[in-house]
Amino acid sequence: MDLLIRDVMFLDSSTGHVGITGNRIVHLGPDVPDEDADRVIDGTDRLAMPGLVNAHTHSAMTLFRGYGDDMPLKQWLEERIWPAEAKLTGEDVYWGTRLACAEMIRMGTTMFNDMYWKVPHGVRAIGDAGLRATVSAGLISGGFLGDLKGEAIELIGMYEAGEFPDRVRLALSPHAPYTVTPDDLEWCAQLATDHDLPIQIHVSETLREVEECVAEYGLRPAFHIERHGILERPTTIAHGVWRDRDELDMLARYPATVVHNPVSNLKLSCGQGRDVRGWFDYAGARAAGVNVALATDGTASNTNLDMFEEMKFATLMAKHSSGDATCMPAAETIDIATRGGADGMGWTETGRLEVGALADVILLDLTDVTLTPMHDPASHVVYAANGHCVHTTICDGQVLMEGGEIEGYGEIRARAVEAARRVTGSSE
Amino acid sequence: MDLLIRDVMFLDSSTGHVGITGNRIVHLGPDVPDEDADRVIDGTDRLAMPGLVNAHTHSAMTLFRGYGDDMPLKQWLEERIWPAEAKLTGEDVYWGTRLACAEMIRMGTTMFNDMYWKVPHGVRAIGDAGLRATVSAGLISGGFLGDLKGEAIELIGMYEAGEFPDRVRLALSPHAPYTVTPDDLEWCAQLATDHDLPIQIHVSETLREVEECVAEYGLRPAFHIERHGILERPTTIAHGVWRDRDELDMLARYPATVVHNPVSNLKLSCGQGRDVRGWFDYAGARAAGVNVALATDGTASNTNLDMFEEMKFATLMAKHSSGDATCMPAAETIDIATRGGADGMGWTETGRLEVGALADVILLDLTDVTLTPMHDPASHVVYAANGHCVHTTICDGQVLMEGGEIEGYGEIRARAVEAARRVTGSSE
Repeated sequence: MDLLIRDVMFLDSSTGHVGITGNRIVHLGPDVPDEDADRVIDGTDRLAMPGLVNAHTHSAMTLFRGYGDDMPLKQWLEERIWPAEAKLTGEDVYWGTRLACAEMIRMGTTMFNDMYWKVPHGVRAIGDAGLRATVSAGLISGGFLGDLKGEAIELIGMYEAGEFPDRVRLALSPHAPYTVTPDDLEWCAQLATDHDLPIQIHVSETLREVEECVAEYGLRPAFHIERHGILERPTTIAHGVWRDRDELDMLARYPATVVHNPVSNLKLSCGQGRDVRGWFDYAGARAAGVNVALATDGTASNTNLDMFEEMKFATLMAKHSSGDATCMPAAETIDIATRGGADGMGWTETGRLEVGALADVILLDLTDVTLTPMHDPASHVVYAANGHCVHTTICDGQVLMEGGEIEGYGEIRARAVEAARRVTGSSE
Repeated sequence: MDLLIRDVMFLDSSTGHVGITGNRIVHLGPDVPDEDADRVIDGTDRLAMPGLVNAHTHSAMTLFRGYGDDMPLKQWLEERIWPAEAKLTGEDVYWGTRLACAEMIRMGTTMFNDMYWKVPHGVRAIGDAGLRATVSAGLISGGFLGDLKGEAIELIGMYEAGEFPDRVRLALSPHAPYTVTPDDLEWCAQLATDHDLPIQIHVSETLREVEECVAEYGLRPAFHIERHGILERPTTIAHGVWRDRDELDMLARYPATVVHNPVSNLKLSCGQGRDVRGWFDYAGARAAGVNVALATDGTASNTNLDMFEEMKFATLMAKHSSGDATCMPAAETIDIATRGGADGMGWTETGRLEVGALADVILLDLTDVTLTPMHDPASHVVYAANGHCVHTTICDGQVLMEGGEIEGYGEIRARAVEAARRVTGSSE
């Protein structure tokens, strides 16, 4: 056995041991394993749980963290984000993604679903950081960002030639129904089928999108993407704020996952004012039986990548909007933030603490003042903890952080700050 | 000069120095002070801001953190909280309050507005911890918790005899319009006037309270407490979710502060289902000109005391409910979470970083990955930081924490865990 975590607490309040060999969990439970371990971590005062899974983000956008908050959307995009993105080099994407990975490691996220550009540089960063991810380039019809279809084909070539680390898989990301034509949606669906790739797409983030989709195609967005074949593949549908019960019932019949991005949705006022339909209807999605996952979105519309914060926002929004303080209980929230995201990407060997699963495990520090005293571990994870309560992060069997220290962080920080200054023209 | 913080960043992105003598800020700005300092803190890579002010909490309830989450309110109170509270000794209140103080120091809160029982034990804890607070006993008519009026008189006696530390002031807390009779409201108002004390009260947390108040007294709650003299004193009104424009306009004419408790309101589903009136109407309060403050409420209905989290929830809820992504910008949110709370308690010498103000100052660690890169300090404080980003906490000129370490935390934790186990009968 390579690694043994001894005497650690689990989410159900029991105590036991976790054994890891290679990149797999090989032992779990109250019995001490027979085999010796090369390395032992003392789990006293630690809580072990699966690494969190961030099911929708644009990781390199860490470079734009806090660059234009409190601005109207149009002004923010036109004056801040687009001019800065136009200056991004591959190296910038590399360091922005490294910074995102450092933040995720620090905050206990071991796997994410990425959508950005200059993907090979992102892949290199994820490989160097040691995290697990599904990556994709955002495809937009008309290709104002260059020959995106050609790039997608090239990426598939690299992926199939084995040029990605084992921990990184490829997806296809038609950006959204309002930026991708029906023909291009079908092109993506076919390509995904031909190459056995999952799909990631933004759907129904705002009411206007839904209204325009109905006006143009006579269908609400989820039915529109269904018609063009997108849902045949494991598909993560980011946001999905404005969907009705018929859409949810239909999505439940496919390998589709609705990804809830509570902070991003609130920050960008996706609720369209006081219209309560603008809440992500968790209770409705649950009733329909659709798989739900949780995500931060990019740091431009959230400002951090803390999945603990996201869990708290998600459950509190569900309680408030359902009028039921028992809605979305803590254990269910954790399940959505781990297994929900992994299953959404079709990567079902992770997102769970089980013998045979991939060894993506985090340990929380139970001596932290926010976690004291302890009546119910799951409750503390969702309602009391933040990402800084994570003490140890293990991904694919490798210890990426212990005691809050991440190897190489000094250089990552310096290079990311340098890149951010250059692309934004900021003085600081 | 006792303490000099050199080369620190401020919220407006400028850099300079903070000088402290005794418990006052005596120097602030880009010039190096002439005078030597007994102690120098290097402020490089640190952000200086006023300590956060938690304007409504029940601090000793840290002992019940996570004890009965995801339960219906009635069951939670009857099966968990009330039986546990019945067992609380003065020593339990002391250690519960010490634990709350440790959490606040860790998370950058230097002042709070407390309401609980066995107040002298809380006062002793706050004194020992080094924080600033206004304390009060929750007064309930009928006195099922003992002779509360007699205790209030006794507390005033202790306070006026100088038995409180300088950092601790006394308030009167009629619990709420639905638990305190009109006669007792008037008794409190008169006592507060006679002894020059501020008031803290829960008002309009749920729709049912408002409806019952109107049915019984013919007035909405804010007008009801006005009629009985409560608003003549500086009054902090906790929650205030369900108030209309007339109430806000009226409150603006008094030294009254509406205290927004976003996490607690969401967690307890104060919105009563999908009725959007159940949002705290920040834009409305702002338009009416009422002072607004921010608070966590007790850990039983929040689960932590992190005012950074509260700032993020408050501004995102304001953006979503107003349909305006520019509503409640970061600098305004910080102002509410510092000056707003201090002014609400009538304690206007703190809650601001100014020459002559009380030296309640926190330093954030700008090397933290969640705060990297830096485009706008105020934005990071509200949208990216959590309480663990605080590196140094100074209250009343005393350094209570540096580098995340709090003196005596080991004993505080052990004693609080022991108390929590005993009163809850929990095995852990």
